[in-house]
Amino acid sequence: MLGAMQDWPLRLERLIDHAAREHGPREIVTRWADGSFERTNWAGIHRDARRLAQALVAFGIKPGDRFATLAANHGRHLVSWFGAIGAGAVIHTINPRLFDDQIVYIANHAEDRVLIYDQAFEAVVERLKPRFETIEHFVCFNPDSGEGGFEALIAGYDGDYVWPEGDERAPAMLCYTSGTTGNPKGVLYQHRSQMLHSFVQATPDVFSLSARAAVLPVTPLFHAGAWGLPFAAAMTGSKLVLSASNEPAVLHQLIIDEQVTHSCGVPTIWLSLLQYVERERLDLGRLHHISCGGSAAPRALIAGYMDRGVQFTHLWGMTELSPIGSVAALPAEWDNMDREAKLDLLQKQGYAAFGLELRVVDDEGNALPRDGKSSGQLQVRGAWVVERYFRAEKSAVDEDNWFDTGDIAVIHADGALQLTDRAKDVIKSGGEWISSVDLENAAIAAPCVAEAAAIGVYHPKWDERPLLLCVPKPGIEPSADRVREALASRVAKWWLPDEILFVDELPHTGTGKLLKTELRERYKDYKLPGV
Amino acid sequence: MLGAMQDWPLRLERLIDHAAREHGPREIVTRWADGSFERTNWAGIHRDARRLAQALVAFGIKPGDRFATLAANHGRHLVSWFGAIGAGAVIHTINPRLFDDQIVYIANHAEDRVLIYDQAFEAVVERLKPRFETIEHFVCFNPDSGEGGFEALIAGYDGDYVWPEGDERAPAMLCYTSGTTGNPKGVLYQHRSQMLHSFVQATPDVFSLSARAAVLPVTPLFHAGAWGLPFAAAMTGSKLVLSASNEPAVLHQLIIDEQVTHSCGVPTIWLSLLQYVERERLDLGRLHHISCGGSAAPRALIAGYMDRGVQFTHLWGMTELSPIGSVAALPAEWDNMDREAKLDLLQKQGYAAFGLELRVVDDEGNALPRDGKSSGQLQVRGAWVVERYFRAEKSAVDEDNWFDTGDIAVIHADGALQLTDRAKDVIKSGGEWISSVDLENAAIAAPCVAEAAAIGVYHPKWDERPLLLCVPKPGIEPSADRVREALASRVAKWWLPDEILFVDELPHTGTGKLLKTELRERYKDYKLPGV
Repeated sequence: MLGAMQDWPLRLERLIDHAAREHGPREIVTRWADGSFERTNWAGIHRDARRLAQALVAFGIKPGDRFATLAANHGRHLVSWFGAIGAGAVIHTINPRLFDDQIVYIANHAEDRVLIYDQAFEAVVERLKPRFETIEHFVCFNPDSGEGGFEALIAGYDGDYVWPEGDERAPAMLCYTSGTTGNPKGVLYQHRSQMLHSFVQATPDVFSLSARAAVLPVTPLFHAGAWGLPFAAAMTGSKLVLSASNEPAVLHQLIIDEQVTHSCGVPTIWLSLLQYVERERLDLGRLHHISCGGSAAPRALIAGYMDRGVQFTHLWGMTELSPIGSVAALPAEWDNMDREAKLDLLQKQGYAAFGLELRVVDDEGNALPRDGKSSGQLQVRGAWVVERYFRAEKSAVDEDNWFDTGDIAVIHADGALQLTDRAKDVIKSGGEWISSVDLENAAIAAPCVAEAAAIGVYHPKWDERPLLLCVPKPGIEPSADRVREALASRVAKWWLPDEILFVDELPHTGTGKLLKTELRERYKDYKLPGV
Repeated sequence: MLGAMQDWPLRLERLIDHAAREHGPREIVTRWADGSFERTNWAGIHRDARRLAQALVAFGIKPGDRFATLAANHGRHLVSWFGAIGAGAVIHTINPRLFDDQIVYIANHAEDRVLIYDQAFEAVVERLKPRFETIEHFVCFNPDSGEGGFEALIAGYDGDYVWPEGDERAPAMLCYTSGTTGNPKGVLYQHRSQMLHSFVQATPDVFSLSARAAVLPVTPLFHAGAWGLPFAAAMTGSKLVLSASNEPAVLHQLIIDEQVTHSCGVPTIWLSLLQYVERERLDLGRLHHISCGGSAAPRALIAGYMDRGVQFTHLWGMTELSPIGSVAALPAEWDNMDREAKLDLLQKQGYAAFGLELRVVDDEGNALPRDGKSSGQLQVRGAWVVERYFRAEKSAVDEDNWFDTGDIAVIHADGALQLTDRAKDVIKSGGEWISSVDLENAAIAAPCVAEAAAIGVYHPKWDERPLLLCVPKPGIEPSADRVREALASRVAKWWLPDEILFVDELPHTGTGKLLKTELRERYKDYKLPGV
């Protein structure tokens, strides 16, 4: 049929071209750990990204080659994203908090050819250099790093460079999951998938980004690409504020001085900031939008920000989802809801944005009703969901593209998602599920409990029954009876643990998550009372 | 390279699926001309669209076939969009205000197979039936239209229907330009282009749509698809309010009763609404966002809404651009601007949203600087810009995809677009351009002028010089000298018309635009004084 619209490939270099052309003077601010500042703007990022691209061409980097970073949030890190992606390479952001073995595994698995790192991580790089199998070029980001440094590298180029054309389904970014079991798995984001993700991210019900926004992503650039925010910020011409420190006093000063309107990060960041401004009797300036993810935010935390006029939005996501899965957007009836109903809503994980579908299924894979009660495995599919992990021979999804998240959830009638547990941590008792997370949250309500872990232990009649392990709070007499009392008023009777043990400490991963695999291994032959 | 994200075709039926699944109860309100109401919701639209799709399959409609409507804004019209598009057909919205010959030309050129029309246009349909060459099925939208009507058509189907799969570059919608010269030309929107347009439309700097928005598109569904709003509303789960009447009292009542937050339309609508609420001392309820396009809004009109707390945004577009070209979004420095600077900004046509590029070129096609002074032909390219008109053998764009809009404009240093004239109306005097629009606006400042038209007339030395035609205001003595005085303080001296004539009336198109082609024809041998 003759007649058509123009073809316009969804390529990410268009984002930085647009930002430079239409929002060139809009600032990109970096606040270093020592308190000093460095300022550039979208036009400057664009120019330096093209200079880096010229350097990469001189390195012999070809389309699809991987280019790694080991760095905090700063302007040069951003330049390296757009330079590498624009040149057709794949930006691979390595998490510097991982253990040595994981960093080595990831870099070798990704077959990175270049690594640019912060001086702060120089010791790691020097230590691991002999074990990196494919990295040919090591470059330090810091401006005073001399001849082999980033500034010296791009100094030889003028930025007079035209991005090569490419397919919109070509890869652009590689992020590894930080799984608690097995080796990390790589998710290879495409130009197209990340572009669609950015469009949705900019909408009012997700991050609500505009040319008037000033965005401070506390989330690291190496964590699912700071939740994709730098791309969406370029799309909308938002100002970006990047900080190498997450201390509450530093974040607060930036929020005030840089007139930050939007931020994102994990609950612990928001808790410490809230405590800081309450203690010091400070306000939050123009901050009006916080996206909170990583784990569930407590009700009091949400209320604290709500009372200060900040829209505090739960965001649930995964590296496999680029990472946005659901957002606790405000529903149509918001203005008519009372305070408690609002908090109930904001405590859930929110709604599927356009482009994504959510469902919960039972063990046989049958879709369960959206009734707020039917708990099952959470599955996702959509425009920015993984199809197969990097270098995996096997697809990660079923024949209808459903990806199993490993989470246990219910979906309410209005479409709101509520996570209840990780699938591998749920305790299966007599064909019914007991949420380990709910048991742990109930246990720490007891004054004598500092931390708690609930695991399922073999039981001949019920298959599994809960065993609760508690770390006592210093200075308070530990009492299993008191813990049992605290639980009794908070969970169903049949959920009560068959035994409560006090232990000196619980095992954790490098990023601070409970290592339940190790606990299950340790207690796998444990005999519950009466068995 | 192994590893990828899911493929997710950008198909418009996903919009209505999403709206029904995630925002099913959100209302779609129709207010009929007689004051009665009809209410459905996204779930109802979804169900009826699938019932219509079943009926179209029974009609033998195949993917790509054209399905026409001749109708006002109402819920059934919306059903017909999603039903036809979902079934793989192309929705062709005919403008009922066109002349008979144009309607016949368009329907035959489009090769429409079905026409659904409002009873209000039955006389037109009956009159033109013998001249429609391809329409096999005529269906009346009105619920009381009996056996051959829309309700009877879908009554036989249950909606148990799965949309057929299709390519994202397949056509979805056909809109004809209402050009002032020559035959109307068809622009064939694709699923993909319209989807990308919808993503951008939802962002805060364009329409800012969310689940909390209640949108009243005053713009007709047959006018570039109500500027694409119904698609973006489905994407975001906004409420839609559709009215068959545009009387200010009706619109105001809807704004209050239906808690409308967003609206769009042409300046005359907003002028009459503003006058109405000022006269009646009424407020505008929750309305906070008006998008105004079609022609330039006067400063006093913009100020009137700004003072009432409504964000009044200029939107410049064309059927060829799906239709969004530029939007007077609020820039980063907005809050620090004074009132006059804000109004200066809002009077311009605004900025290119991500996905579109604007430039002005001289007669040789050289790009001109963004300096607010260099006036040239406005060109556009991007993700939702026409490549070639429907059934045209020739492309409508140059080798770099630039589409010539036919407008004359300057672009300011901040990227703001300012239209100065239509290219064919500009007066070319001694190699320089005189804006006919600016002359006309200056002329109507004279108390004796009701309407004015400026055209270029042959001049042996300057090629063209301006001739100004004025319709006198009743009861005031017409005076060319007074008009000349009014002009002298408003335009450059060399712009002053060589002659000012008073005429009884000026010719107009069916939609009220000045018909300058006719004036130029009428005065083509006119001898200016001194020639």
